[in-house]
Amino acid sequence: VSDGGPDRLWGGRFRGAVDPEIDRFTASFGFDRRLARCDLVGSLAHARMLYERGVLERTEARRVLEGLAGLLARLEAGELAVDGAYEDVHTWIEMQLVAAIGDAGRRLHTARSRNDQTSVALRLYVRESLEELDRGLLELAGGFCRRAAEHRETFLPGYTHLQRGQPTSLAHHLLAHAWTLLADHRRLVRVWELAGVSPLGAGALAGTPHPIDPERTAALLGFAGAFPNSMAAVADRDYVLEAAFACALLMLHLSRFASEIVLWTSSEFGFALLEDSVAKGSSIMPQKRNPEPAEILRGKTARVVGDLTALMVLLKGLPLTYNSDLQEDKEAVFDALDTATAAVRAGAVLLEGVGFRPERMRAALERGHLTATFLADHLVRRGVPFRDAHAQTGAAVRAADERGVQLWELDAAELRRTCPEAETSVLAELRPEDVVRAHRSLGGPAPERVAEQLESIGAELDAARGWLAGRRAPPVHRAFAAGTLLDERLDV
Amino acid sequence: VSDGGPDRLWGGRFRGAVDPEIDRFTASFGFDRRLARCDLVGSLAHARMLYERGVLERTEARRVLEGLAGLLARLEAGELAVDGAYEDVHTWIEMQLVAAIGDAGRRLHTARSRNDQTSVALRLYVRESLEELDRGLLELAGGFCRRAAEHRETFLPGYTHLQRGQPTSLAHHLLAHAWTLLADHRRLVRVWELAGVSPLGAGALAGTPHPIDPERTAALLGFAGAFPNSMAAVADRDYVLEAAFACALLMLHLSRFASEIVLWTSSEFGFALLEDSVAKGSSIMPQKRNPEPAEILRGKTARVVGDLTALMVLLKGLPLTYNSDLQEDKEAVFDALDTATAAVRAGAVLLEGVGFRPERMRAALERGHLTATFLADHLVRRGVPFRDAHAQTGAAVRAADERGVQLWELDAAELRRTCPEAETSVLAELRPEDVVRAHRSLGGPAPERVAEQLESIGAELDAARGWLAGRRAPPVHRAFAAGTLLDERLDV
Amino acid sequence: VSDGGPDRLWGGRFRGAVDPEIDRFTASFGFDRRLARCDLVGSLAHARMLYERGVLERTEARRVLEGLAGLLARLEAGELAVDGAYEDVHTWIEMQLVAAIGDAGRRLHTARSRNDQTSVALRLYVRESLEELDRGLLELAGGFCRRAAEHRETFLPGYTHLQRGQPTSLAHHLLAHAWTLLADHRRLVRVWELAGVSPLGAGALAGTPHPIDPERTAALLGFAGAFPNSMAAVADRDYVLEAAFACALLMLHLSRFASEIVLWTSSEFGFALLEDSVAKGSSIMPQKRNPEPAEILRGKTARVVGDLTALMVLLKGLPLTYNSDLQEDKEAVFDALDTATAAVRAGAVLLEGVGFRPERMRAALERGHLTATFLADHLVRRGVPFRDAHAQTGAAVRAADERGVQLWELDAAELRRTCPEAETSVLAELRPEDVVRAHRSLGGPAPERVAEQLESIGAELDAARGWLAGRRAPPVHRAFAAGTLLDERLDV
Amino acid sequence: VSDGGPDRLWGGRFRGAVDPEIDRFTASFGFDRRLARCDLVGSLAHARMLYERGVLERTEARRVLEGLAGLLARLEAGELAVDGAYEDVHTWIEMQLVAAIGDAGRRLHTARSRNDQTSVALRLYVRESLEELDRGLLELAGGFCRRAAEHRETFLPGYTHLQRGQPTSLAHHLLAHAWTLLADHRRLVRVWELAGVSPLGAGALAGTPHPIDPERTAALLGFAGAFPNSMAAVADRDYVLEAAFACALLMLHLSRFASEIVLWTSSEFGFALLEDSVAKGSSIMPQKRNPEPAEILRGKTARVVGDLTALMVLLKGLPLTYNSDLQEDKEAVFDALDTATAAVRAGAVLLEGVGFRPERMRAALERGHLTATFLADHLVRRGVPFRDAHAQTGAAVRAADERGVQLWELDAAELRRTCPEAETSVLAELRPEDVVRAHRSLGGPAPERVAEQLESIGAELDAARGWLAGRRAPPVHRAFAAGTLLDERLDV
Repeated sequence: VSDGGPDRLWGGRFRGAVDPEIDRFTASFGFDRRLARCDLVGSLAHARMLYERGVLERTEARRVLEGLAGLLARLEAGELAVDGAYEDVHTWIEMQLVAAIGDAGRRLHTARSRNDQTSVALRLYVRESLEELDRGLLELAGGFCRRAAEHRETFLPGYTHLQRGQPTSLAHHLLAHAWTLLADHRRLVRVWELAGVSPLGAGALAGTPHPIDPERTAALLGFAGAFPNSMAAVADRDYVLEAAFACALLMLHLSRFASEIVLWTSSEFGFALLEDSVAKGSSIMPQKRNPEPAEILRGKTARVVGDLTALMVLLKGLPLTYNSDLQEDKEAVFDALDTATAAVRAGAVLLEGVGFRPERMRAALERGHLTATFLADHLVRRGVPFRDAHAQTGAAVRAADERGVQLWELDAAELRRTCPEAETSVLAELRPEDVVRAHRSLGGPAPERVAEQLESIGAELDAARGWLAGRRAPPVHRAFAAGTLLDERLDV
Repeated sequence: VSDGGPDRLWGGRFRGAVDPEIDRFTASFGFDRRLARCDLVGSLAHARMLYERGVLERTEARRVLEGLAGLLARLEAGELAVDGAYEDVHTWIEMQLVAAIGDAGRRLHTARSRNDQTSVALRLYVRESLEELDRGLLELAGGFCRRAAEHRETFLPGYTHLQRGQPTSLAHHLLAHAWTLLADHRRLVRVWELAGVSPLGAGALAGTPHPIDPERTAALLGFAGAFPNSMAAVADRDYVLEAAFACALLMLHLSRFASEIVLWTSSEFGFALLEDSVAKGSSIMPQKRNPEPAEILRGKTARVVGDLTALMVLLKGLPLTYNSDLQEDKEAVFDALDTATAAVRAGAVLLEGVGFRPERMRAALERGHLTATFLADHLVRRGVPFRDAHAQTGAAVRAADERGVQLWELDAAELRRTCPEAETSVLAELRPEDVVRAHRSLGGPAPERVAEQLESIGAELDAARGWLAGRRAPPVHRAFAAGTLLDERLDV
Repeated sequence: VSDGGPDRLWGGRFRGAVDPEIDRFTASFGFDRRLARCDLVGSLAHARMLYERGVLERTEARRVLEGLAGLLARLEAGELAVDGAYEDVHTWIEMQLVAAIGDAGRRLHTARSRNDQTSVALRLYVRESLEELDRGLLELAGGFCRRAAEHRETFLPGYTHLQRGQPTSLAHHLLAHAWTLLADHRRLVRVWELAGVSPLGAGALAGTPHPIDPERTAALLGFAGAFPNSMAAVADRDYVLEAAFACALLMLHLSRFASEIVLWTSSEFGFALLEDSVAKGSSIMPQKRNPEPAEILRGKTARVVGDLTALMVLLKGLPLTYNSDLQEDKEAVFDALDTATAAVRAGAVLLEGVGFRPERMRAALERGHLTATFLADHLVRRGVPFRDAHAQTGAAVRAADERGVQLWELDAAELRRTCPEAETSVLAELRPEDVVRAHRSLGGPAPERVAEQLESIGAELDAARGWLAGRRAPPVHRAFAAGTLLDERLDV
Repeated sequence: VSDGGPDRLWGGRFRGAVDPEIDRFTASFGFDRRLARCDLVGSLAHARMLYERGVLERTEARRVLEGLAGLLARLEAGELAVDGAYEDVHTWIEMQLVAAIGDAGRRLHTARSRNDQTSVALRLYVRESLEELDRGLLELAGGFCRRAAEHRETFLPGYTHLQRGQPTSLAHHLLAHAWTLLADHRRLVRVWELAGVSPLGAGALAGTPHPIDPERTAALLGFAGAFPNSMAAVADRDYVLEAAFACALLMLHLSRFASEIVLWTSSEFGFALLEDSVAKGSSIMPQKRNPEPAEILRGKTARVVGDLTALMVLLKGLPLTYNSDLQEDKEAVFDALDTATAAVRAGAVLLEGVGFRPERMRAALERGHLTATFLADHLVRRGVPFRDAHAQTGAAVRAADERGVQLWELDAAELRRTCPEAETSVLAELRPEDVVRAHRSLGGPAPERVAEQLESIGAELDAARGWLAGRRAPPVHRAFAAGTLLDERLDV
């Protein structure tokens, strides 16, 4: 049945049935069913507030609360399948409630609309998903730190333009990714906070004449506060776009790491081997060992960028307040969050399965005159303007190339010819590992600086984990779990 | 089991198992199972060609063909569930084949790789989906023509900048959408042709030493020809991006129509009412009648734009030839095609459910001086330069506004004052419906021109339907259906 | 000349000239010249730090500082044209410096690379641009508040699905936009902070062996601190993407307002008229008055979304650290910031030029049964479950429609028939303006609530303006302006 | 002056001036000035048709035509600067015309609107730009063929997943890019055709009462025909989006080639060296030789994807017909066309400057068991099912790895142990260059197949160049050049 009948939350003025094709096209239950738990939690907060404010008569209100709690308990126990031919998850819940407690269930929708209801459920969902994502992200960041700690003295070329630039350490390189992820963590926290504004009580767009208390609802949900303007509240999807953007940026970061794994496991680079647990073979070429997880990590970046783009296209040009277009926000943000969460987890496993090959890295360091800049810097210390030092060193590099030697193998005469102010003792300092050690500036690759980094990012990650550990279920959900939902006084 | 064992198409060099997290992250069976039928058809063509060329020993080849045909028959009969813990659909098929016919099944992969295999299956799939989409599209275009034919003499304001511009007819307006869809049809045909190049025989990237005949495979699949370069063949996803672009542009067109429905069903415009079959109510506001199907049509545009964006991000910067990133192409193009197909169908139903309100349109025509340009054109015919005619008419409009009358209600004196060269008889020609009739230029709104349009687009749509009716299953599939797959000679 | 000669910052190993086509294709001076001032400020900080740390011999360092200060003074006085055939702005500056102070200028590049140099200049630029954008944004937000204050008692329909939903006030509606902009302001502040991390000292990717002090450089630039990892520092463009995202989201918000102006100035809505200062005419239709500024505001949203998309595509898959692809970040973020800044300014002017038409709004309120929900709420207060109240009210709406009256014009008998539990006195409460006043819930449209909103957002905007007023030039720039750049001690 | 005064094409009803901020925000002259020449050509066609149809009195019409021709002559001679404070290029032209020929110039706008005028100019511009782009594209494609012809016997690894897969030839690899570009050429041709529908005569949206002949205008412009529906005509931007899509896809293709150049010029791959003409140095690392042109080629892909995204966002949700949002289409499509044109040119220069290093390619071929698949194929020919052959070969690879030898260096015993059905003579066939020669399947890398490819693509490119050579200026422009514009009869 698809008319505005008993299985619809609307229909007073409707007599005919919705066309089945239209029904399929417009129904959201196929994807918003994911919000079932969050919607129940939001409903608990709403009902509790109505109870406290006497908007619902107290006996009825208690029945509603008990009914909702019963549904939530069954849902969490896996005893309640969220399916069927419903328009959306909100309809499903109200129908379940009426089935469970009868007519009292028809009172739940007092002083709210699907417009504020959907958004509060989605906010709860986004928050939980961000926490889940952050868990994986922090694990991956921790993984980078652990692998870095193993490789403080593993030296390799640092690249710009994919050309060997200057020597660095593997620890330093891996920590670059860890710091980037820490920035992602901060972004997630910020979005989490942004999502923590309750729209419940905004109604369809104009609030309600009932004496509700939106700040109380917000507190019951663990939100920082309630909306300041009911029209803005139901039209706002900033938290959805911010969440998708945070996922997209995170994925872009991972795509850079993934590209490195693809590069490093190529025969040509050979800086790493993948364990069997994180590689795949070819259906036709028996010798192949493909870095598929890294490629797919990079590939999945695309879909999250697509999700964000979709959300931006969606919002463009919509007048206030709620428009059904916004229904399309869910699949995009679900996909962005799912993908990012899967990606950080897979990334962590991938990272563990990377076998670095220090000897190949060292060999690469020996070719390419990566310490030319150090020679230039030496000349600077001897009073040569940097730009001239750059030119002289360039000449020394050319000389070394012509002789087929590395810079430190130049003989003193050749050095003097190309770099007249250089001390010949500098030749002995030009080996890559020594140059890494000499790059002692703050934030640089010298092992002592990397040790500092490990310490400071360790502290940052501890703080981040602390933040995550401090996330708790919404107060109303804790009250449900503790059985105190109907207590006369409920502190949050 | 997730090692490179019996349920993998690879693994010779692999000893350890793939990590389950990585397995989930990289498996494509969850979505590429959709390709099962197409992959079987592609495999039939491949096997038939191997058979004809003697690459497979003939008895074995026949067993392979029979085995594949058996699987296809069961699949089409709904007796073969495409599921299980497989890496991808290709693995699933090979495993099914081996289960069905034993060791001979292990010969199927001769002279091909998953790289060419996937692409041929996806090309078949895209073609079929484009046909399906085109079917809906042509129905919708036909719907616009039908509704237009009903409203040749229904006049309404034509808008630019959402301001009333000049009078037009509803038929003309609806036909604008029909012509736009016809352009979309042509785009689909073009993509269909583009997809009709067979990559089978490109192997992993370098063809094969076996004496295969890629042109024969192409012919068996109903493709126009085979690839010219094996490396380009496995790296190419142009047909995927073209398909997604065609869907995105189509959706953008629909979003414009959808916006109009939203506007026209607003109380303010009131140009249309939605039947109950294509409207929805509000969970809180009992008086509401929301144009949700139109809003969602517009909203779904966003996801298809997102799909295309994702595909572009995916390809960016990938070196030749195949990279696993490309695995991510499928869900994006599936979603684009699914969404567009659902959208044209829903659009057709929506259009049928729109009740136009000619009286409201006519009332709108009466206000806003929409025929001012006609007055200017009259002045031009009287020898006034258009730019001066524009200025004089502007003055006449101002005069009418000040008097609170419409242009045709101006008195002769006022007309003479503002437009000295005008004949007063022009006032009688300024009523909107007369002006529509006077706009007889080619492609214009005059009923006789619209009648021509209806005829010409009718012919175009007939041709389009003819093209679609001419689409047939690939020859190898027809041979399968006809039981001639093993005939010595198989003409295509 | 285009070889790696005297007009290049590189070239030691190069003998041939760069191809002119390639030169044009890769040169960035055409757009990065905008960074000239910021690059000089960054260079001042770098040179001052080198001076303090004795990395440059002090007499030479003073000459460099004086030389840079001279260039900056001339630039700010408009006496120095930033043009010519240079590769990039950094080359231009070094060449200018050498021209001004001779050989000492060739020492400036000591201990830095273009990789950290570009990023610090871009960070300074982004910060300044964000401040400029924020200035316009706060003015626009203030404009919404001012217009809202004028219209506390102007009532109009609140829309969902572009259907009349519930009565609200124009003040409430306008404040919805103001609150949204406040969120945008907060986003800008956050990006401003994110940009405030100095990469100077990261060098090409690996820091330097010179005894530099990156924290000092950061302090001289007014940044919160220096980079923790030199490789992350030069690879990072998060601040660019965040800035573009903030612009895109802001533009999306403006596009919603713009759509409303387009709607409201249509003949059909008629809720507003545009003054001549913010409307445009038609080249052909003399009666037209087009809301072009609003359309273009909406249209320009597209380009900023495009800019963000471009930046995401740019980063995807780039391995560490710097790659020249990143050079393309500038035009995109410049365009995003320029467009958003122009948009908020134009938006503010547009808003001032909107003449609201309260009488048309009131007329719209009278039709459409916008107070049906209030009737339902009344029934709820009388003990009817909301869902039943919804159905009964739907029946009442139908009855009113059939009689061609508004809900409050129903007779008591009809009310009793459809809503048996209603008190007939409720009919007197159903007029839209009374219902607005009754919607007294927090954040709702009742005038007393709107008064609270005006107060609270006023305070928020004051705080925001305070933040903006507190932005000062970087300390090193202030020292330059004060002539204290060469003081022995320079406190920041 | 910015009111609707003498320098505006509108203004009859306007009394106040447009706000200067709004004027800047909405003016398009800054970018649509590029259309000046095309707009003049379109105007010539329009005026000639009016002349032929007698819509303009003939003496006046001749003056208009002469006036326009005079402007065009001066513009093409570089004697007419397209600048000043005009709203748009159309205003500029009309003002110039009036300045040149007086009042008669005020007649030009008869029977057209800026809506059809802009679109026809943009269509002409897009066509010309596509031709220009195609010129560069075909040159680049030709370059790939030339370089391929030099390297028919240069063998290198073919990669999948950036892992060495099977041996191929450099010619084959380069031709993969050539074929891809050929597909891009076909796409450009198609868009060129799509753009060749004239909207002139659609007027603002509803045609005109004047007896115009849109098909004649179309013919004068060299278009295939005129619009079928005036409302669709002015609302349509399909040709703009198609052009941007063609550019985006082309850029994505180039980004793949660019990535390869970056890879191949890395020390690790070392497959190519860049000549000084196409490389750049580092400002700090004297030994560097950066593939900047390739990186920027890849980077510029991003902006074109951004342009296309912007265009899609722009169109979304706009009701018919013309809306000023569409004004924003120009900069996006200009940028897409400019960037793609610069990119193919730079790409052609880059390709010429790539010095391939066959010895490094050959060395890479020797490691990695790239001929394992050939061994498997040998087993298949010996009757082993492919899947078993794959497994046995995998074992042979493992054995070779354990012994530190290449497959062809395995001893016969080891071969027999791992691949019992293999003939030992196969070992002699496993050297990579022999395997390339054996891959003689159609479209494969064997030199004889590559020779065929060179021939067939050569013929295709000749045909493409023929198409391009056949593009001529619009007939009306040729008549202008030939001085026959005012001839009584003008055949096209």
